[in-house]
Amino acid sequence: MAKQRSKKTPTMKSTSPRTTPGSSATVTKDRDKKTLMKIDELGEAIVKSSLAQRDPHVDIPMRTVSNTKFNKSKRILEMGSNAQRRNLFNLSMAKKFMQTVLLADGCKDLIEAGKTLSLRGMYYKSLHTIEGTNEKTFNDQSESDPVLEDLEVSLGALREELHVYARKAGTIAGNITLIDSGDEIDCRRMGSGGYSIPSICEPSIIQFKKCEAKFVLHVEKNTIWSRFNEDRFWQTHNCILTEGGGQPPRGVRRLLRRLHEELGLPIYCLLDCDPWGHYIYSVIKQGSINLAFESQRMAVPDAKFIGIRAQDYERCELSDDVKITLTDRDITRAQQIAEYPWFVDKKPWQREIERMLANGFKMEVESLITKDISYVTETYVPQRLEERDFLD
Amino acid sequence: MAKQRSKKTPTMKSTSPRTTPGSSATVTKDRDKKTLMKIDELGEAIVKSSLAQRDPHVDIPMRTVSNTKFNKSKRILEMGSNAQRRNLFNLSMAKKFMQTVLLADGCKDLIEAGKTLSLRGMYYKSLHTIEGTNEKTFNDQSESDPVLEDLEVSLGALREELHVYARKAGTIAGNITLIDSGDEIDCRRMGSGGYSIPSICEPSIIQFKKCEAKFVLHVEKNTIWSRFNEDRFWQTHNCILTEGGGQPPRGVRRLLRRLHEELGLPIYCLLDCDPWGHYIYSVIKQGSINLAFESQRMAVPDAKFIGIRAQDYERCELSDDVKITLTDRDITRAQQIAEYPWFVDKKPWQREIERMLANGFKMEVESLITKDISYVTETYVPQRLEERDFLD
Repeated sequence: MAKQRSKKTPTMKSTSPRTTPGSSATVTKDRDKKTLMKIDELGEAIVKSSLAQRDPHVDIPMRTVSNTKFNKSKRILEMGSNAQRRNLFNLSMAKKFMQTVLLADGCKDLIEAGKTLSLRGMYYKSLHTIEGTNEKTFNDQSESDPVLEDLEVSLGALREELHVYARKAGTIAGNITLIDSGDEIDCRRMGSGGYSIPSICEPSIIQFKKCEAKFVLHVEKNTIWSRFNEDRFWQTHNCILTEGGGQPPRGVRRLLRRLHEELGLPIYCLLDCDPWGHYIYSVIKQGSINLAFESQRMAVPDAKFIGIRAQDYERCELSDDVKITLTDRDITRAQQIAEYPWFVDKKPWQREIERMLANGFKMEVESLITKDISYVTETYVPQRLEERDFLD
Repeated sequence: MAKQRSKKTPTMKSTSPRTTPGSSATVTKDRDKKTLMKIDELGEAIVKSSLAQRDPHVDIPMRTVSNTKFNKSKRILEMGSNAQRRNLFNLSMAKKFMQTVLLADGCKDLIEAGKTLSLRGMYYKSLHTIEGTNEKTFNDQSESDPVLEDLEVSLGALREELHVYARKAGTIAGNITLIDSGDEIDCRRMGSGGYSIPSICEPSIIQFKKCEAKFVLHVEKNTIWSRFNEDRFWQTHNCILTEGGGQPPRGVRRLLRRLHEELGLPIYCLLDCDPWGHYIYSVIKQGSINLAFESQRMAVPDAKFIGIRAQDYERCELSDDVKITLTDRDITRAQQIAEYPWFVDKKPWQREIERMLANGFKMEVESLITKDISYVTETYVPQRLEERDFLD
């Protein structure tokens, strides 16, 4: 039905000195070797214990709130040193021990094959009925996902380095050229759709080529992104425009971190004035509580919150119509967020949350449309940028 | 902070004779004129009634299941001729009448400004407290969305022509070059991320430039899409690869329809073997029951279902592990789908659904990973294509 085409044409190779030429497989090689070595070490330790007739074990750092600490100098969430030993010869641990080894083996396969899989794919890959029994290796994906996270932290390798990816969401456009798997992506010429941010944004897959942009504007939803893109905001303000489909997935967070770290771009977040918006900001900035391990590679402690602010109701002279009453759950969440160690010492954030609670209502970015369709792109964000009026 | 850059560089203009050059505003002009005319007619009729001291009204075609008919010759869902008259001088209708006029006015604004808004944005745009009262024009978005749909059907204009867009989701890569708002999008060079399918895929925004592809493979989820893209399936099989994030949003459906209609490409759908997968296929093929009006512009009656099939458990020699037991709800849904007028006469589909019910389990596309990571891209789909083994 189809003709085989050559896998790469010469023009597809990057010629910029800032990027590594060649296919992603070549670029990945070193990092993959390192990850493979870690998996091998895990395997060897188990074999060694077994041959010495000792009970084989794996030590899994604990991913609990109590083992999560806010590192004040680095300003990110970090995992503490508590670990749990998972033994083979322990009835309550044997299955999880087996699952850990099985998934490690699966990741080894993936890396050696130079392929990637989704979490669901990984579940299926490692799924089989254990010979001579009716017992399955996993009852469902809810069993394999956490074991994969265990593996991630115990190996000290991001999920992406294990060749496993999370859901893909998010869009980018603006004054930057990326190289993605050897293809040159000119984000200045991405029409109305934009470039779809990959689920794996490691340097092995994504390299930065040419960037004139001076900052990144990250917005919460793709509907807002479309408004900014349609108004060519990234062009008139020389920036990069991203969105993460609500709570940004790992790929988006990793990309933001790399844009900040490698290109020195400030990250400004335009999110709703509600606990969910504040939480999204918190995850972008400090990392997530459940996966504190990833913060060191994904968090952007210098990210700034550009709005929506509780004072905007008055400052922007909005009408009562934009008020959305806070629910009891919102109030509880807001109080929890105010007590996060990275918010608790920040007076401006304390005032912000207090004011929202005093208002008794939340506001969405879209509420600015009541002023004018393009008020947010032509007035609101430009003013905040001009006045450098951000929450940190 | 930023320098103003010229809005279009000469190189950004398309030089292909198959596309209309210039900005999307120019391209849209004719269609927009037509839509504006329809809105004006609506307004004029109301003014005319008022001046003649008659009760002003709008006739809204009914968007109910009973007013939805399957057109056997066109093989799409169509709306019947039942309409409901919405009067101003009727207590139970006055508010909806006002909302209809208000949203029509909002769409007129958008079209004249050459801008677009999301459904949520449109809600905010039309939201205000009616002078001298405490009454808001809309209590929440759940009131404005259906009125906008009413407007769509009564004007005979797609939502997109009213400059209102739905959520954006979905990705494309493959042997085609698109023009999106004047930017040339080479879908052959979209790396691992892919091009993000815009929420509005009307010819005014998206034009097709160069296409070697012989067919479109549409898959359900972006995780599966990534597997196909990573294996360069679109390159080895000279095709276009799309995904719609589950139930494809309007933009994706409109794009599939246009790829089929304007470029003559067959559309093959790779979906889960479960009622949800069958339903997605049904919506792509015949249109959705709730919005039958859009079918004539979005449905692809020639779309084919390439799998997963109920027989695959045996045909592909899958293990018991891939079986996911059908729930009661699944069984009810499957029976409902079997009775859809466009499935009821099709023996192969009746057999397919019967076999799934007899199996007692569903299967996901990902289940093929239990065979091999790339079984789906290297064996399953190529075999079905080779044997032209589809459900219609």
